[in-house]
Amino acid sequence: MNIEMIEAAEERLKGRAIATPLLNSPFLDEISGRRVFVKAECLQKTGSFKFRGGWSAVSALSPDVRARGVIGYSSGNHAQGVALAARLHGVPCVILMPADAPRVKIDNTRALGAEVVLYDRTTGDRDAIGGALAEERRLTLIRPYDEPQVIAGQGTTGLEIARQAKDAGIDRADVLVCCGGGGLTSGIALALQAHGPGLRARPVEPEGFDDVKRSLASGKVERNARLGGSLCDAIVTPQPGELTFPILKRLAGPGIAVSEDEALAAMAAAFSRLRIVLEPGGAVALAAALFRKDEVEGDAVIAVASGGNVDPGVFRQALDRFPTL
Amino acid sequence: MNIEMIEAAEERLKGRAIATPLLNSPFLDEISGRRVFVKAECLQKTGSFKFRGGWSAVSALSPDVRARGVIGYSSGNHAQGVALAARLHGVPCVILMPADAPRVKIDNTRALGAEVVLYDRTTGDRDAIGGALAEERRLTLIRPYDEPQVIAGQGTTGLEIARQAKDAGIDRADVLVCCGGGGLTSGIALALQAHGPGLRARPVEPEGFDDVKRSLASGKVERNARLGGSLCDAIVTPQPGELTFPILKRLAGPGIAVSEDEALAAMAAAFSRLRIVLEPGGAVALAAALFRKDEVEGDAVIAVASGGNVDPGVFRQALDRFPTL
Repeated sequence: MNIEMIEAAEERLKGRAIATPLLNSPFLDEISGRRVFVKAECLQKTGSFKFRGGWSAVSALSPDVRARGVIGYSSGNHAQGVALAARLHGVPCVILMPADAPRVKIDNTRALGAEVVLYDRTTGDRDAIGGALAEERRLTLIRPYDEPQVIAGQGTTGLEIARQAKDAGIDRADVLVCCGGGGLTSGIALALQAHGPGLRARPVEPEGFDDVKRSLASGKVERNARLGGSLCDAIVTPQPGELTFPILKRLAGPGIAVSEDEALAAMAAAFSRLRIVLEPGGAVALAAALFRKDEVEGDAVIAVASGGNVDPGVFRQALDRFPTL
Repeated sequence: MNIEMIEAAEERLKGRAIATPLLNSPFLDEISGRRVFVKAECLQKTGSFKFRGGWSAVSALSPDVRARGVIGYSSGNHAQGVALAARLHGVPCVILMPADAPRVKIDNTRALGAEVVLYDRTTGDRDAIGGALAEERRLTLIRPYDEPQVIAGQGTTGLEIARQAKDAGIDRADVLVCCGGGGLTSGIALALQAHGPGLRARPVEPEGFDDVKRSLASGKVERNARLGGSLCDAIVTPQPGELTFPILKRLAGPGIAVSEDEALAAMAAAFSRLRIVLEPGGAVALAAALFRKDEVEGDAVIAVASGGNVDPGVFRQALDRFPTL
C-alpha cells in the first residue's frame, strides 16, 4: 500500500468519479468557532465515497478475471459502489448484505443490477459466507476495506482534499473522516502524508462503536461489544482492518466518538446550511467538527461527509429534532 | 450584454464561487428515458446561483461607490447572494424582501449582516420602495435580473455547463433552467451560444406563473395574472425582464411549465438519487427533465437545480408525498 497506488487509482477514476466540492458556510463556522469545510462525498456516484474504491478495484482486475464477475459484502454503500462499478464494466456482481440494512440500500443495490444475498448480521460470519460464494462461482471478492485497491480508490478523496485545501488557503487542519473499517481514513491519511503537509487525518465514529478510536488509544486492535442497533449502520464494523490499522496507527491523529443525536444534528445542519443529504454514519465527522470543538485542533477543520443514502424516515427525524440548525 | 462580460465575471468569481458539480444517476435516467445531468447550483454559496450575480455586481463597482453600500430586493435567494457578497467586500447592505418570503430566507439574510426591510408583495411596488431607499442612503441598487453585471455573473453557470457537458461527452442537449425574471436563463443562453454548440437554454416555470413561456410563444411581454400563492416563490416575478427578454427571444428554446406536484416529486428524487436539497422553485427544471419528457428533445438533458433554501416543512411534504422516487 503506497501513494503510487492512490495516484494510479486517480488516473483510472478520471471522468468516472465526481470530483466532489469542498463546501462551507458562515453559519457552520459560527457553530464550530473555526472555519469548517465539508468534502461532500455524499454527492459521489451511488451516494458515497465507496464508488471510488469499487471502481478502483474492479478496474484493476485483469480482463479475464474481471469477466467472471465480482462479489462484495456491505451494509449498503460498498454494495452500491461495487455494483455500479461492475455494471459499468459489464461484468456480473453478487452482493452479500445484512438483512437489517436500510431498505433503500438493498433496493438500490438490486436496481444497479447486482444479485443480493442477505444474511443475519448478529449471527452470520460474512467473511465465511462471502468466501464460500466466491469460490463456488469463481468470483473475485472485493473486500470493503481490507483490500489495497479499495484503499487506493478511497485515498483519491485525500488527493482532492489536499488540492482543495491549498486552493482555499488552509495550511493546517484536522481532516475528520467517518470511519468504519478504516479504508477511507487510511487512504486519506496516505494521500495527505504525501500531498497535504499540515493536514492530519482523524477517524470519527459513533459512541459505542468506536473500535478504531480505542484501538489507536491502546495501540492494539480492540473490538466493538456489539454490531447491531446503531443509526450509523454504514460505519459499524467489528474491529479495525488488518491492512488499515497499521496505516492509521502510523499516520492518523486520535479518534473522536460522537453521539447519535450529534450525528442527527449534523444532518440537519448539512440540510439547511450546505443543502446536502447525509446519512447518520456519513454525518459523524461533521458532527465532530461542529459539536466537539474542544477535541479538534487548529483554526480550520475539514470534515468528510462520506455518504447520503438515508431512509426518508430517518432524515425526517433529523429535521424534526433539530429544526433550527 | 455580451460574452466578454460573462468571461470577465468568471475571472472575478474565481476562488469565490463554488464550481458546482454536474451530477447524474442511472435512476433518473430511467425515469426520463434519456441521460439526465443536474447542475447542482443549490450547492453554491448561500444555497443558490444568486451568489454569482451578487458577487459579480458588487465586485464590478468602483471602490468608492461600493464603499457607500448596496441595496437589493428579492424573495430571498438574491438577498442572500448580495448580502454575502457585500459582507465579503466589507460594505453595508440593505435588502428589501416581501413579508411572505420563507422565514429561513429572511433569517439567513439578516444573519449574513444585511439590514432587512419588509414589504407587502401583493400591494407594494418594490421598484419604487427600493429606488427611494437607494436614493435616500446613496446605496447602489443591485437588481435581481435586469442588471448586466448580475446577468454576467449568472452566465458563468453556463460557461461551467459548456465545459462539463464536453467532458461528459454530451454533444446535443436541452439545458433546462428554472426561470423567474430570466437572469440565469439569459446568462446561460449567452454563454452557451459562445461556448456550447449543440446546447440550447430553455426556461422552466411553475404552472400559473409562466410569463416567460407565454411571452416567448407570443413574441411579446406577457404578465402573470397573480404573484402570490406559489410554492415556487423563488422564481415568481411579474413579467420577463427588459434586458433578459430580448436575449431569451433571440437565443432560448420554448418554455416549459410544470405543476407544483411535479416540483415536489423532483425534490424527492433529488433527495434520494442525488443527495441534494432543492427548494420547489429550484426543482422545476429537474421536474421538466423527469416528467415532461415529450417536451424535451435529444437523448441527453441538462437541468439546472438553481436553489436549495427550503423550509423543513415544505421539504418534509415532498418526502411524504413521493416516498418512492
